[in-house]
Amino acid sequence: MPALPSTATIQHLDLPGRHGLLQRFAAVRAHSLAITSGLTPEDQCVQSMPDASPTKWHLAHTSWFFEAVVLSQHAAGYRAFDQRFFHLFNSYYEALGPRHPRAQRGLLTRPAHDEVLAYRMHVDAAMQALIETASHDTWLAAQPLVELGLHHEQQHQELILTDILHAFSCNPLLPACEPAGVPALRLAATASDPKWLAMPGGIVDMGHTGDGFAFDNETPRHQTLLAPYQIADRLVTCGDYAQFIADGGYERASFWLSDGWAAVQAAGWKAPAYWIAPGDARAPASHWQVFGLQGVRPLDPSAPVSQLSFYEAAAYAEWAGARLPTEAEWEAAFTAPGITQMTGHVWQWTRSSYDPYPGFRPLAGAVGEYNGKFMVGQIVLRGSSVATPAGHARPTYRNFFPPAARWQFSGLRLAKDATC
Amino acid sequence: MPALPSTATIQHLDLPGRHGLLQRFAAVRAHSLAITSGLTPEDQCVQSMPDASPTKWHLAHTSWFFEAVVLSQHAAGYRAFDQRFFHLFNSYYEALGPRHPRAQRGLLTRPAHDEVLAYRMHVDAAMQALIETASHDTWLAAQPLVELGLHHEQQHQELILTDILHAFSCNPLLPACEPAGVPALRLAATASDPKWLAMPGGIVDMGHTGDGFAFDNETPRHQTLLAPYQIADRLVTCGDYAQFIADGGYERASFWLSDGWAAVQAAGWKAPAYWIAPGDARAPASHWQVFGLQGVRPLDPSAPVSQLSFYEAAAYAEWAGARLPTEAEWEAAFTAPGITQMTGHVWQWTRSSYDPYPGFRPLAGAVGEYNGKFMVGQIVLRGSSVATPAGHARPTYRNFFPPAARWQFSGLRLAKDATC
Amino acid sequence: MPALPSTATIQHLDLPGRHGLLQRFAAVRAHSLAITSGLTPEDQCVQSMPDASPTKWHLAHTSWFFEAVVLSQHAAGYRAFDQRFFHLFNSYYEALGPRHPRAQRGLLTRPAHDEVLAYRMHVDAAMQALIETASHDTWLAAQPLVELGLHHEQQHQELILTDILHAFSCNPLLPACEPAGVPALRLAATASDPKWLAMPGGIVDMGHTGDGFAFDNETPRHQTLLAPYQIADRLVTCGDYAQFIADGGYERASFWLSDGWAAVQAAGWKAPAYWIAPGDARAPASHWQVFGLQGVRPLDPSAPVSQLSFYEAAAYAEWAGARLPTEAEWEAAFTAPGITQMTGHVWQWTRSSYDPYPGFRPLAGAVGEYNGKFMVGQIVLRGSSVATPAGHARPTYRNFFPPAARWQFSGLRLAKDATC
Amino acid sequence: MPALPSTATIQHLDLPGRHGLLQRFAAVRAHSLAITSGLTPEDQCVQSMPDASPTKWHLAHTSWFFEAVVLSQHAAGYRAFDQRFFHLFNSYYEALGPRHPRAQRGLLTRPAHDEVLAYRMHVDAAMQALIETASHDTWLAAQPLVELGLHHEQQHQELILTDILHAFSCNPLLPACEPAGVPALRLAATASDPKWLAMPGGIVDMGHTGDGFAFDNETPRHQTLLAPYQIADRLVTCGDYAQFIADGGYERASFWLSDGWAAVQAAGWKAPAYWIAPGDARAPASHWQVFGLQGVRPLDPSAPVSQLSFYEAAAYAEWAGARLPTEAEWEAAFTAPGITQMTGHVWQWTRSSYDPYPGFRPLAGAVGEYNGKFMVGQIVLRGSSVATPAGHARPTYRNFFPPAARWQFSGLRLAKDATC
Repeated sequence: MPALPSTATIQHLDLPGRHGLLQRFAAVRAHSLAITSGLTPEDQCVQSMPDASPTKWHLAHTSWFFEAVVLSQHAAGYRAFDQRFFHLFNSYYEALGPRHPRAQRGLLTRPAHDEVLAYRMHVDAAMQALIETASHDTWLAAQPLVELGLHHEQQHQELILTDILHAFSCNPLLPACEPAGVPALRLAATASDPKWLAMPGGIVDMGHTGDGFAFDNETPRHQTLLAPYQIADRLVTCGDYAQFIADGGYERASFWLSDGWAAVQAAGWKAPAYWIAPGDARAPASHWQVFGLQGVRPLDPSAPVSQLSFYEAAAYAEWAGARLPTEAEWEAAFTAPGITQMTGHVWQWTRSSYDPYPGFRPLAGAVGEYNGKFMVGQIVLRGSSVATPAGHARPTYRNFFPPAARWQFSGLRLAKDATC
Repeated sequence: MPALPSTATIQHLDLPGRHGLLQRFAAVRAHSLAITSGLTPEDQCVQSMPDASPTKWHLAHTSWFFEAVVLSQHAAGYRAFDQRFFHLFNSYYEALGPRHPRAQRGLLTRPAHDEVLAYRMHVDAAMQALIETASHDTWLAAQPLVELGLHHEQQHQELILTDILHAFSCNPLLPACEPAGVPALRLAATASDPKWLAMPGGIVDMGHTGDGFAFDNETPRHQTLLAPYQIADRLVTCGDYAQFIADGGYERASFWLSDGWAAVQAAGWKAPAYWIAPGDARAPASHWQVFGLQGVRPLDPSAPVSQLSFYEAAAYAEWAGARLPTEAEWEAAFTAPGITQMTGHVWQWTRSSYDPYPGFRPLAGAVGEYNGKFMVGQIVLRGSSVATPAGHARPTYRNFFPPAARWQFSGLRLAKDATC
Repeated sequence: MPALPSTATIQHLDLPGRHGLLQRFAAVRAHSLAITSGLTPEDQCVQSMPDASPTKWHLAHTSWFFEAVVLSQHAAGYRAFDQRFFHLFNSYYEALGPRHPRAQRGLLTRPAHDEVLAYRMHVDAAMQALIETASHDTWLAAQPLVELGLHHEQQHQELILTDILHAFSCNPLLPACEPAGVPALRLAATASDPKWLAMPGGIVDMGHTGDGFAFDNETPRHQTLLAPYQIADRLVTCGDYAQFIADGGYERASFWLSDGWAAVQAAGWKAPAYWIAPGDARAPASHWQVFGLQGVRPLDPSAPVSQLSFYEAAAYAEWAGARLPTEAEWEAAFTAPGITQMTGHVWQWTRSSYDPYPGFRPLAGAVGEYNGKFMVGQIVLRGSSVATPAGHARPTYRNFFPPAARWQFSGLRLAKDATC
Repeated sequence: MPALPSTATIQHLDLPGRHGLLQRFAAVRAHSLAITSGLTPEDQCVQSMPDASPTKWHLAHTSWFFEAVVLSQHAAGYRAFDQRFFHLFNSYYEALGPRHPRAQRGLLTRPAHDEVLAYRMHVDAAMQALIETASHDTWLAAQPLVELGLHHEQQHQELILTDILHAFSCNPLLPACEPAGVPALRLAATASDPKWLAMPGGIVDMGHTGDGFAFDNETPRHQTLLAPYQIADRLVTCGDYAQFIADGGYERASFWLSDGWAAVQAAGWKAPAYWIAPGDARAPASHWQVFGLQGVRPLDPSAPVSQLSFYEAAAYAEWAGARLPTEAEWEAAFTAPGITQMTGHVWQWTRSSYDPYPGFRPLAGAVGEYNGKFMVGQIVLRGSSVATPAGHARPTYRNFFPPAARWQFSGLRLAKDATC
């Protein structure tokens, strides 16, 4: 769910030299291919639900972004690889023309996988030429958009993994992705008993400082007032969550938000999305297992629980006699002594709806036209996950998904009010 | 969407004497009958959509509340009017047993309207006896619940009006409700040009003071930090809104949140819910008209615009180069010099999702079991409307509806950041 | 599902005198009021599903038919009761203008019940004047349409009963209709063991002879060729059907048509529509009960089974090692020696899709514009039911409903191929 | 929509020698690969709607049939290629175990295309061994099932083409299939004015004679009685159909069956499924074009119209002042002097619902368990199409689809009653 950077952020960037940016461009673009190298063209074409997109579509769309936003605007004489791709690989930019229906992305067996790779090479070559040869003025205009395109591609790198994992989870064969270049899931950290860290509250700063890249939804930096609170030093684990299930968590309405309970009833949820109950015909075993990028593995009680909806996270917290932290509390605790697992495991649901920050301003122009347009009906997640590319996360990063979403690497950390 | 009062609030109530409460009980109960006296039994039975309920159901459910929450618990020897009504007229209290499906409330032609009136009388008599004869200890326990039941009934009095108005709006004959005891719509206030009132921001208190009754979602009173802002001195009018429509407001995606634009496309919205375009066969005219409690009337440019979704309110604000106020900004401006129309016309959409206040605590027991369970996916509205019973509104009152809801008396007031 | 008479049929009618027709007009119109006299205005307003219509709508629509088809065309100077009713009470005649949406008929709390009664009286008076005073030529044109209107109203008299019964079946109170003027359900006939009657087959005539009134779907009379077959002398009973249930009939796919099995799975069918299982909270008992026009009664093993879909009828027949008769077989057996229960209990599903007879011709003009337009996707039922008005059924009558319909008085009789 | 042969048919087969059958086995199996050789693995994986299946699934399912029905039962010591394929590639045989959900066949990126080819080779080798080495008794039992499997595979060969064509029609690039081994569409026959051929009617035989293979739905051969009728000597052409469109065929309710008119309104049909209107952005042109196996081509007025629903065929016939033939009329006219285009162009919708023939009997055993289970809610088509494999069609062949289906090579021929 990409958002775009604020003008202020772009203006104050410490601009890397062209050579450095070119190196980074090459690295980011190569990473997309690396994590998909184990997938067949068939794997890369499938779309398992409207919310997810095919790998091939992600590979093409991230190239489309450079073509539509950078090259078409700033590379004199640029010739499109194929005019029809402007329509096929637009995601939601209404100002950039009509779009192929989201739910039908899986029908695009053509252009073939090889053609999309050729499309990427075409865009890469043009981008290299632009970076190396653009005039000074052109460069000033284009450079922030290139930067933006790279962060945009990194966002899609995480979605590539969560989307193919969802597709594989729908296949009774439950294949393993084992994406090259992605470390084995670091979910198996040893879990000691959780500790409550006392946080003092008061007026705190939150939002991006302007130092380095940020999306515009992280701005402006502003002050907010917090009451004293406590926050857990670690994430909720699969072992913790299994106790919730064993205690009838999915059968007792009293723990659930009303919409959450309706979702439980309608969808028949009985455990996190990729948990496999004992006796499941797809992977027979007498104990719980969990499906993930490395395939089916025995449930590890000390691994962070993942693939949770917000509703489940909130119900767990209620059952545990605690609550979720707000996003301000989460951000203020980022450097708290003793706190662990703030990034790199699972995105953490907060108790904050995704509303604009005070003073939030959309950017001018096509890239900014719709910056805030997703700011309703969604919940903020903080941190980052095993699927987040290195260097992409920040303490101020605001990820967001609808409360029923379960196909992300999403888990939770507990908080509670200060005891007085 | 009733919420319930906090323990703290109940404990610190300045308790009225029994006599005074009995008088108020009689007055509130009578008002429900007064506003429905012009409706036939057929009118009172109909349910026009799952979100709305039949009048008869409202009349029975508000009685059920006294029976299930007060009489069954505190009136020794109370005999239910009909045991089956516990099931039929429960709304969403899971702890109080199974419920009749919400979408099928309109199928209850039996119990007949007369029977429901008899049910009300039965409950009224038992309540009178309880209030007059309860022991001191029983009274201490029951009194806050009686108080709660009256506020609960007042909430339903507004819903009675909005729900029957929706039903009538689906009838091509477009009948007028003209509810007895409800003043003619005060929408026709003269509208001068709106003025921007400058607000200083800073640390402000918000939430209920504990003085008098409040629902628990208004608590605890707490501090929050506001940046300086400006707020309009009056509501947006039908005349204002007609300019938005004439300027292509419903055809231009750039003004809309993504979900809002999708709603416009899917539902074919072209104006507020009860506006009648020139040439509509149901009420032929060459000019815009508006359907309301008094039937079809010519559009009054100086009347506040009403029956808007949050999406439309937000799109209008975007078009106007402004934004909606947050609920904290709204509450802080309640007594600002020069501000008008804060209550009594239309509920005002804010730019605040309906999240819990810091330190919010659900009540113990059945009435409190689900206090916060609607706190996801909804938007806060502030103020009150022409349909709100006298004495029911407060500056701290938090009303809430999903962002697509259009059948309430809901409008908007503009805000913007301070210019510096 | 009214169909209309063929031209041929109309031309060859033995026309009753005006006096006789007037008497019959009065009797049929009065019967509609008689069977609804026990229903409250609330009961008469409700619509429990799109396939069913409110009683009040039926009462108005049958009057609309006389107004739109007879009076507007043939009564000079006729003044409509209310022009808006032409839109409100049209059912599916596209040539007669736009229609109120079928699924929203239950929203018409206005016109009120009393107004609809006044509408009926207005139409009755105008019809009386027409019948008594029309010129000879006018009468020749109008008389067949009056005749048609009466048969049309009789069809709706049956639907009034099945539709209100469905509405009451959705009410947990399970009220009894006990329609005045309708005999107690004749379902309790003693059931001896069924006997197979041998039928010789050969070329048989089928379709209406032209003697007396018929709908056009019964024409033309024609010949068809039947192989020898056997047909049961009586209907399948509740006792018979209970054995099918006890033998796992609803759990074994092998008995079911593919669409039928899908319906069982999707809707969770476990018994006929109005059967009440032991332990049902709505009517506690330790044995099976059946809900009907007289309310909840113990299951009578010798009563014909009713409220079955075609899918269930076909599955039962498969389980019983038999099949359903075709409509030609049914019609040829109508006067077979020893056959019983051919009319007056339940409509009998046949194994014939509702296709046009060879040589079928639609009528000219508005009444005939859509005669055959329902001839796809439906199944023929033969006979008549306890809810069919006296004198309405014929051996050639073709009733039809979609295969999943369960709210009619619909059951079955078995047939099988001749043993050779 | 495979149906299975009757016992009687199998018993009276003139059995080919094993050598001959082996040759035919090889030819049919090779044809499946030939027609898919131009499709990429991506193409072969996609499922564009629940009614269609991926090519890869068809290739696997036809192999599954030999494995589940022949090898598992009759090849001693046969080892399954992969046990999980029994679940993955079952279509609707409830007796043969659970099935992968039909609508999720497109999610099976694994097993990979190559694996499915290996699966086919595994089955082919085992089948070859069985055919060559089975004992006499085994062969007697297995041979009819092998025969059946080959006809089953031929049915799927047509579906492979119609299903991939539907998928490609959803791709804005509108790729051409150009299946190897399938002749270019023979749609471009010259169309003279249609002539009416007079047919005498009387008692005619219909159904399969027992000479050669047939599916059981074609049996038993029986007599039926026809009135004299007329039938067109050729199919309705694109030029004919374009006149219907130009005359407002899709805007005038009077031509349509009620369900058909509802489909037109709901789906926005304005032409046959793959017709491309002038100005369509996918293939800009100023004239009508038609998409097909050879890609986008200009509309050929003399080609038979195709990709029609039954509703459209019936509406066209109504507009033309004619009707569709019944299936008995069609079959009786098969050898009428002067009749053309009875096979090899498009399947021809008849005016016959798909009901069982008199005396129809399902087979015993797994293959026959569900023979008649699709005999409700469908319409019979006769003839064959350009996509039907050589040698697969018969005059008695009963194809069937729901009345709204538009993705087959389906068109029509007109009929009418004899003028007397």
